[in-house]
Amino acid sequence: MPTITAFENSPDRGRGHARDMRVRWAFEEVGQPYDVRLLSFAAMKQPAHLALHPFGQIPTYEDGDLTLFESGAIVLHIAERHDGLLPKDANARARAIAWMFAALSTVEPPIVELSMAMMFERDRSWYAERLPGLQEHVRIRLGELSRRLGKADWLDGAFSAGDLMMVTVLRRLNSSGLLDEYPDIAAYVARGEARPAFRRAFDAQLAVFNAASRS
Amino acid sequence: MPTITAFENSPDRGRGHARDMRVRWAFEEVGQPYDVRLLSFAAMKQPAHLALHPFGQIPTYEDGDLTLFESGAIVLHIAERHDGLLPKDANARARAIAWMFAALSTVEPPIVELSMAMMFERDRSWYAERLPGLQEHVRIRLGELSRRLGKADWLDGAFSAGDLMMVTVLRRLNSSGLLDEYPDIAAYVARGEARPAFRRAFDAQLAVFNAASRS
Repeated sequence: MPTITAFENSPDRGRGHARDMRVRWAFEEVGQPYDVRLLSFAAMKQPAHLALHPFGQIPTYEDGDLTLFESGAIVLHIAERHDGLLPKDANARARAIAWMFAALSTVEPPIVELSMAMMFERDRSWYAERLPGLQEHVRIRLGELSRRLGKADWLDGAFSAGDLMMVTVLRRLNSSGLLDEYPDIAAYVARGEARPAFRRAFDAQLAVFNAASRS
Repeated sequence: MPTITAFENSPDRGRGHARDMRVRWAFEEVGQPYDVRLLSFAAMKQPAHLALHPFGQIPTYEDGDLTLFESGAIVLHIAERHDGLLPKDANARARAIAWMFAALSTVEPPIVELSMAMMFERDRSWYAERLPGLQEHVRIRLGELSRRLGKADWLDGAFSAGDLMMVTVLRRLNSSGLLDEYPDIAAYVARGEARPAFRRAFDAQLAVFNAASRS
């Protein structure tokens, strides 16, 4: 059974924004059981973990003699080996993978930049002046995404690993209010969150956080 | 023959930092000819291009009835279909793909954030105060990457699509001086730039810029 790593005590307080959520959700979509090894922040920067993940992050993936890092690579690896996350048709498969890269390379960076500023720059002199520009960068991407998505359920035909990545990236905006400006995208995220596999993955990571809080 | 899109007049003035460079390099590594359609900034945001690329960027990839966007997805697509960019061994192949995602998701965002600030925030009141933090984020990633790379030629065995993506991402730092602090990484980037396939791709994109400058 593959083993992944996750935060022992997630800084998102169990809201499922940590990147192990993507891998958990992928496992649940394809019906593949997995083990989880929890790591403290200190352990993530120790040699034992750095041997698995050069950047000292979570998640990692270990299965036999294969070790992987990067949530995108792990989800793609799972999707290539099990039915349920990539279309059979070669062209549709390539497009689903393109949406995975779009989620990580084009949509996620301005969202992370905004959320980092909201977390770490609130007390800086420039915060009020800089915030509107950061929000605007996110709005541009949301507008483009909304125009492409329209009233469709998913980005390109059936639910795929591309939707899985995009929904997890967009969920970081849940508390920002920005998604409310794009009802089609808010509905898309809600559609992802309503999938039984998402719920199982979400509950699993929440249980870890709740256990850490009680201890 | 596949057709890609590129800037008619690249804002990097032919230094090969635009993302078509990655795709050109991949085509050259596998010995696959390709066509290029050049786009103005205005054309990139028109409906005809948005139908190919929802975020109105370059590059795109068209081959028969398949259209792709995202340089990572296009390079992976090329690498899956031609020898030369992914190992045959399944585990080594998965690790090479993990390095592609690492380049785009973990190493590129702080580099883009730094270079955007250096381009667009120089006149802002906060620039001097904010710059050191941005540089530090990049240094953390470079330090981690350097520790993993060590004296090896490439990130994981033979040159792969993972190295191709990582070298193109790191090249954006060429003018920042930061690479000089990490000689192993500077040598790694130089090793990538010395590959004949890189040179052919670089010269091709430079020729486009030079032609635009003359016209």
